[in-house]
Amino acid sequence: MIKHFFEPKSVAVIGASDTPPKGGYHVMNNLINYGFKGKIFPVNPGKKEILGCTVYRSIKELPEAAELAVIVIPRDGVLQALRECADKGIQSIIISSGGFSDADDEKGKEMARQVSELVRQLGLKIMGPNSLGVIDLSSGLNTTFGPLGVVKKGDIALLGQTGLFATGFIRWIHSGQYFGLSKVVSLGNKSDIDESDVLEYVANDSDTRVIAMYLEGVRDGKRFYKLAAEISKSKPIIVIKSGRTERGRRSMLSHTGTLAGDDNVFNALCKQAGIIRVYSFQKLFDLSKAFSYLSLPLDNNIAIISGSGASGVIGSEYAAERGLELPEFNENTVRKLKGIFPEWAPVKNPLDIWVAIEMVGYNQTIPTCLNAVADDPRISSIVLAIAAPFMEFDLAGIVENVRRKYPQKCLVVCFVSGSNDIAQKNFAELEKARIPCYFWMENAISVISKLCQYRDYLRRQD
Amino acid sequence: MIKHFFEPKSVAVIGASDTPPKGGYHVMNNLINYGFKGKIFPVNPGKKEILGCTVYRSIKELPEAAELAVIVIPRDGVLQALRECADKGIQSIIISSGGFSDADDEKGKEMARQVSELVRQLGLKIMGPNSLGVIDLSSGLNTTFGPLGVVKKGDIALLGQTGLFATGFIRWIHSGQYFGLSKVVSLGNKSDIDESDVLEYVANDSDTRVIAMYLEGVRDGKRFYKLAAEISKSKPIIVIKSGRTERGRRSMLSHTGTLAGDDNVFNALCKQAGIIRVYSFQKLFDLSKAFSYLSLPLDNNIAIISGSGASGVIGSEYAAERGLELPEFNENTVRKLKGIFPEWAPVKNPLDIWVAIEMVGYNQTIPTCLNAVADDPRISSIVLAIAAPFMEFDLAGIVENVRRKYPQKCLVVCFVSGSNDIAQKNFAELEKARIPCYFWMENAISVISKLCQYRDYLRRQD
Repeated sequence: MIKHFFEPKSVAVIGASDTPPKGGYHVMNNLINYGFKGKIFPVNPGKKEILGCTVYRSIKELPEAAELAVIVIPRDGVLQALRECADKGIQSIIISSGGFSDADDEKGKEMARQVSELVRQLGLKIMGPNSLGVIDLSSGLNTTFGPLGVVKKGDIALLGQTGLFATGFIRWIHSGQYFGLSKVVSLGNKSDIDESDVLEYVANDSDTRVIAMYLEGVRDGKRFYKLAAEISKSKPIIVIKSGRTERGRRSMLSHTGTLAGDDNVFNALCKQAGIIRVYSFQKLFDLSKAFSYLSLPLDNNIAIISGSGASGVIGSEYAAERGLELPEFNENTVRKLKGIFPEWAPVKNPLDIWVAIEMVGYNQTIPTCLNAVADDPRISSIVLAIAAPFMEFDLAGIVENVRRKYPQKCLVVCFVSGSNDIAQKNFAELEKARIPCYFWMENAISVISKLCQYRDYLRRQD
Repeated sequence: MIKHFFEPKSVAVIGASDTPPKGGYHVMNNLINYGFKGKIFPVNPGKKEILGCTVYRSIKELPEAAELAVIVIPRDGVLQALRECADKGIQSIIISSGGFSDADDEKGKEMARQVSELVRQLGLKIMGPNSLGVIDLSSGLNTTFGPLGVVKKGDIALLGQTGLFATGFIRWIHSGQYFGLSKVVSLGNKSDIDESDVLEYVANDSDTRVIAMYLEGVRDGKRFYKLAAEISKSKPIIVIKSGRTERGRRSMLSHTGTLAGDDNVFNALCKQAGIIRVYSFQKLFDLSKAFSYLSLPLDNNIAIISGSGASGVIGSEYAAERGLELPEFNENTVRKLKGIFPEWAPVKNPLDIWVAIEMVGYNQTIPTCLNAVADDPRISSIVLAIAAPFMEFDLAGIVENVRRKYPQKCLVVCFVSGSNDIAQKNFAELEKARIPCYFWMENAISVISKLCQYRDYLRRQD
């Protein structure tokens, strides 16, 4: 059962260790740090206790058939372990070990075939090989075999064929991002469980609101399409997929041994199924947090409020290129703004607020402009571009107030220059308040345009 | 004389102040902080001394005709100040004040015409209006009217129609970037001195090796083209230019009052003249520091060494899309690498080093891989992608050693995930050693492809 890969009542760690650099140590440590709620059965022939857990000498000697086993031993012992698991009645297994279809030698490829054979013969469910497994922020399951900080529970699921989701990106999120995760899955070589299986699972998971995926190939295109088309009506699916160049397809064979399929076909599939395709991890995360924090913009009309004229100009170009409109403010808005600008200053969209800041300071300029523009019925989304904060002021507090007052407006902040330390401080405060925050104008504009595209897809489904 | 705008023997500050938030205070303070080597003559009718400098009550009362005047008073007094400067024999003038062709009212536009008229009548040289003027890291001139940290002297010149170059970006560089600047020019409305004038000046400046520009329009296309074509043979010129959409062109009118011209014509001009056109400030800086730190790659062959398989795959796609090649390593290289990988692991380009790190650790994996690949005659550029540094190790020291040994190889580091604090520490150390360092794979690959394009342009000129 796929459920056992996310919330098993018990987990056996085959190859558990008490020595820190070893993978079998980190699996144990991560289970404990993430507060796994089930029973933990470490298996190691030479130990008595690991991190406070009683150790079992072999799979056979386990006190019960664990609902999930994690295999963290070199590849040569994997087939035997699978058989022993089956004998014990353990049916759900994560194979962390690499060197199967991802290997460069015939032996690995042969062993991959044998894993598939055992799956068929013994009725096993396998995730991997070459998989870091699952992090489930609800059950506390974490089968990653590297050291990790504990990330926040949230509504974004990360699924795919990269260990980065369960290692490097967890550390990146833990050390400087503020969005939360629901489930993380590193599929590895997909000898059995594939993207469609886990997609279906998170679709029914009430914790997950946004689904972000990295794919190299799709095993069953028809099933994936049907699932995605259904799910994307209620949860946005953002996908980065490799294999659009011949070179990329070649590299994939050494990575996960996956065949990419025709990229045009995948593109068409995305369009039809409402999948939002992106081409970099940065965009994947930029967009995931926006979907997590924001409701969708009502239309394509945006305003740019910028501390720099050049950034406003550049932002209006990005907007135009991405199908967004910058309407002029209505008379009421202009009247409210005029009061804090010198008489000669243009009060137009994009709004260059520099002269207002000089005249009345940040603390009056930012709330006056944000409130006036948010109140303008012509404007649905606002990008507030902070250009040169040399004074500290409560940016997050100001933006939060406006968002509370105008919850239907899509409000995004970006830093286009200025002191790094002040920007970092503001970034942290804004993101903690679930206001999406980006560095560089194009990232902010790009996010809003993608939200609008997804909204249009949903409307076409009505 | 344009030279007086960069290294005047004396500068008069019209509207000097001793009260911190005022522009006239910051000009004084910046001149002193940047160690301006000439004489400073503050002009203010009500003060005796400002920051240790004797104050003059009027322009007329100045002890000599300063080689440069900076006007930091509201727009209504500017025309009169220009006349008084001319009477005194001051010919080179920066007008900081805004509200001329950038203004929304008829009065501003009329005053802009009068400024141009005075330039003609009185033989003045004007930078601005609406200009932050010049920062010259050699003479110590800094006419910016906001607070700034002191940035490092280096070989990158920033020229253009944005105050950001002399404000927000200086603070950004000061607080977290490690490249140095030679000259910074904020042109403003270009009533007189334009992009060609300053381009010509930095072309002859021995401090400047890389020229980065933000433009909204080009006043004299023919002159700019001739200059750029000549200069780009020895100094790369990187340009971000607004006005490629109707919406952007409209926004520009409120920013600097500039007419953009036909974007296709500008694109053709760039191609012909060897100008590297980019579309974001991020790319402008990414590329400027690469040109500053690196010599040009000998050919388009790159290697990707990555702590993550997925990032290697993604990187090889970006490379293929940008005309770069990932050749297989030669036999010698493969032999040297095999020793630190499990026997089954693929030793191919892109090189996924994760299993080697698990086997022998970072401290052996990174130098072994970097040295072997740098020694491979098939490889001209290397992207080292750090995916998940959870152990601290001397990355900068390792990379520096390899660069010293293989100076003709183009070596770039990028962080594709991992702990923010470790990445920031490594970023600082690498950049201080002039090794260009980026976040996200696409930024690193994009930089190398642009270096190759410029190299191809230069070869066509031979």
